[in-house]
Amino acid sequence: MGELTFVGLGLFDELDISLKGVEAARRADVVYAELYTSLMRGLSLENLQNLIGKEVHVVGRRLIEEEGSEPILERAEESRVVLLVPGDPLIATTHIDLRLRAERRGIKTRVIHAASILSAAIGLSGLQNYRFGKNVTVPFPEPSLVYETPYMVIYENKVRDLHTLCFLDIRVEESKFMTVKEGLRALFEVEKRKRLRAVTSRSLAIGVARAGSDDAVVKADYVERLMEYNFGPPPHTLIFPAGRLHFVEAEALITLAGAPEDIRGMVT
Amino acid sequence: MGELTFVGLGLFDELDISLKGVEAARRADVVYAELYTSLMRGLSLENLQNLIGKEVHVVGRRLIEEEGSEPILERAEESRVVLLVPGDPLIATTHIDLRLRAERRGIKTRVIHAASILSAAIGLSGLQNYRFGKNVTVPFPEPSLVYETPYMVIYENKVRDLHTLCFLDIRVEESKFMTVKEGLRALFEVEKRKRLRAVTSRSLAIGVARAGSDDAVVKADYVERLMEYNFGPPPHTLIFPAGRLHFVEAEALITLAGAPEDIRGMVT
Repeated sequence: MGELTFVGLGLFDELDISLKGVEAARRADVVYAELYTSLMRGLSLENLQNLIGKEVHVVGRRLIEEEGSEPILERAEESRVVLLVPGDPLIATTHIDLRLRAERRGIKTRVIHAASILSAAIGLSGLQNYRFGKNVTVPFPEPSLVYETPYMVIYENKVRDLHTLCFLDIRVEESKFMTVKEGLRALFEVEKRKRLRAVTSRSLAIGVARAGSDDAVVKADYVERLMEYNFGPPPHTLIFPAGRLHFVEAEALITLAGAPEDIRGMVT
Repeated sequence: MGELTFVGLGLFDELDISLKGVEAARRADVVYAELYTSLMRGLSLENLQNLIGKEVHVVGRRLIEEEGSEPILERAEESRVVLLVPGDPLIATTHIDLRLRAERRGIKTRVIHAASILSAAIGLSGLQNYRFGKNVTVPFPEPSLVYETPYMVIYENKVRDLHTLCFLDIRVEESKFMTVKEGLRALFEVEKRKRLRAVTSRSLAIGVARAGSDDAVVKADYVERLMEYNFGPPPHTLIFPAGRLHFVEAEALITLAGAPEDIRGMVT
């Protein structure tokens, strides 16, 4: 009888939702939105509500996770509930978890997809999709703790001649969004200890800022110069190419991302 | 002056385009669509034209690739041209290549993102995004040739405890779309030669059919049983999980994809 539909909002603002997503939200009895798993910088709740023609209830982490989600699930048992989420739904584990709890209660669930930073960043970089290895998130450093995992993922991908997509930590509730510079610094700290030459000042990297917006920035350069590049406001994403590039990849980085021309020397 | 905007159509039908994409197409002077890099089973050209309020010129491979794209680039030099493409633009190398040629001629290019099978299949599987390794396409077998690469990619990912997303070959112009069953068979042929136990009858696999549609199917089972499962019409996608699963992954596969309950034994 009831149902819970996860609708992706896409990347940047309220116009990134699909027509199918708008339609589902219009037909829903209740519409919730969670906006803490990603930063949708251009999103206006007012515009979103006007588009959908009804109130959108913004819910925090507490109302999505574990016992906190009880009110949403109760509504979804007897009515059509839409949960709007940034990006493509179910990429964040927390949504898979909510979907599981709904299905176990006999609530029918559906997914309406939208653009994800996963494919957007790969596409914008000009690098080839099938050459990406495992991706990873770079977390904000803690005072007494250095996270080695992201560095090791980049290293292991490079050993296998693969690119690495690095998501940068975001803490929406604290308004903290890691920048390309902060991400590079965090990885550099690990380089100093590990010395595997995975992230040196001469490593090629690509920063992507505000994917999906009219002022999206994609810039490729060596780490030492990328550190000084002004990407503007977040969200930012970071990509480490493999040590060798295909011909089209190198040309794309030079023409579309302003990479230095000497990267042609990386072409095999 | 002129510009070329790549607009993603998303996964299944004309309602998977974003509001931003519709707006760009409405404002364009000319709208082209290429529909040969993916199968959008639910797409009606007539509905799409009604949505956009103008004619959509469907172009074949010849008009996108290399010298053939001259007419599109000439139009884009002096007017606002939109190219509609399935999925999220620039995931197919051919679009990156077209974008490069446009930028080199001084044509401004833009990208409006949409849902991609890359994130959709990962999300629908219930497996965790950061546990996927390199992805791969399984090509149709040739009479005297067995492609070993896809099998080896699955094997190498498994060795590293990573999942593998396998795109299945499509040849839109020949109306040939590889099914889950055909994909499994092709991989099985390689197993017989290599004997690395990467794709045996007892390997767990997940088939995804018609992602983005109302009758999307996601089914997880052991290969021998998955071979017999009726997924309905294409497009299909195949996923091979790592040999070990996280607790939430196993529960998601059981509840959302009907996996056998004994996969709980794969949880570490």
